[in-house]
Amino acid sequence: MAWKKVNPARIHRLFYPQVPVVITVGFNGRIGGMPAIWHTPLSFKPPLIGVAIAPEHATHEMIMGAKAFGVNWLDFSYAKQVGELGDLSGKDFVNKLAIVGFDAINGEASGQPLISEASAVLECHYSDRYRVGTHQLIVGRVMAAKANDNFKEYWNLARYNPLLYAGTESRKRKSWIFKSLRDETVTVPLRGHARRN
Amino acid sequence: MAWKKVNPARIHRLFYPQVPVVITVGFNGRIGGMPAIWHTPLSFKPPLIGVAIAPEHATHEMIMGAKAFGVNWLDFSYAKQVGELGDLSGKDFVNKLAIVGFDAINGEASGQPLISEASAVLECHYSDRYRVGTHQLIVGRVMAAKANDNFKEYWNLARYNPLLYAGTESRKRKSWIFKSLRDETVTVPLRGHARRN
Repeated sequence: MAWKKVNPARIHRLFYPQVPVVITVGFNGRIGGMPAIWHTPLSFKPPLIGVAIAPEHATHEMIMGAKAFGVNWLDFSYAKQVGELGDLSGKDFVNKLAIVGFDAINGEASGQPLISEASAVLECHYSDRYRVGTHQLIVGRVMAAKANDNFKEYWNLARYNPLLYAGTESRKRKSWIFKSLRDETVTVPLRGHARRN
Repeated sequence: MAWKKVNPARIHRLFYPQVPVVITVGFNGRIGGMPAIWHTPLSFKPPLIGVAIAPEHATHEMIMGAKAFGVNWLDFSYAKQVGELGDLSGKDFVNKLAIVGFDAINGEASGQPLISEASAVLECHYSDRYRVGTHQLIVGRVMAAKANDNFKEYWNLARYNPLLYAGTESRKRKSWIFKSLRDETVTVPLRGHARRN
């Protein structure tokens, strides 16, 4: 118990490492996708999940338009693509998923784009939103869920290698840091405008 | 993209592995503590965090009484104690933290109990709650945050070994499964009434 004060602007980093999900949404002829680490399940029945998104993100506006969205789990081998999605604004692209090399397919339950490389996906209908300080907590009702063979009752972690976000570093250049459960680290250089979450 | 349908009752498990926090609260002469994995930061400024708790938990009632609570990060070496806290009902004990061997100290900003063995702690004032299906999302405003030397700008993962919850298994007996980022696994047998989250 040798604690020191933590700057209130950094307290969200105490929650790291966290598995990022990629939120996908199609609206108005455009496909968006952003990694989100501020997320949680919220209810067993009905199955509800929440994701906190800054309202200035293009993804937020698109979800409010589409009234639906996808949730995608990419494994550790896709650290680079997930990092790049976090570093690009959806406002600049017709299909942001394609820019990083992901293949978008339409979910049957929602018509929303899903990432075909994902280990698991949810299709959610927009259910509610709550304004909480700087962010909107978007509550989604899960209409359909799918996963590859690595998920049965639980994830088979001998086969599924989850991606974990651990922060950024600024050695040579600013980079995202991703970890696995297998003592692996990948850093993905930030190109642009993303904030150092 | 060889996906199969996932039972809606299991979709929260797609979010695993997740770092559990222990929610601590003192009310009416009693000290409660429960591990929570349905949590997320919610806002930078003011610093807000959310934790989804089933309202039948003693912890929920105590938070509503105390209008405050603590959030505690225990590292991988405390897997057993965190698992045991998940397996006991706070209704049965005056000091649930002491039952598993944790030392409770009072936070200066809130008067709420904190776990002295924790790597980091938050003291939160109750801010809001939203009913979401089976759970209540409790929103806490962070009044104070402290961490040990392993946290500066971010966690130093060369030193801090975070605890990650990965589900349960039922080989010999039902057990919680915890993982680290260093390819370590610990299983903690469930004694009692906890559900297999």
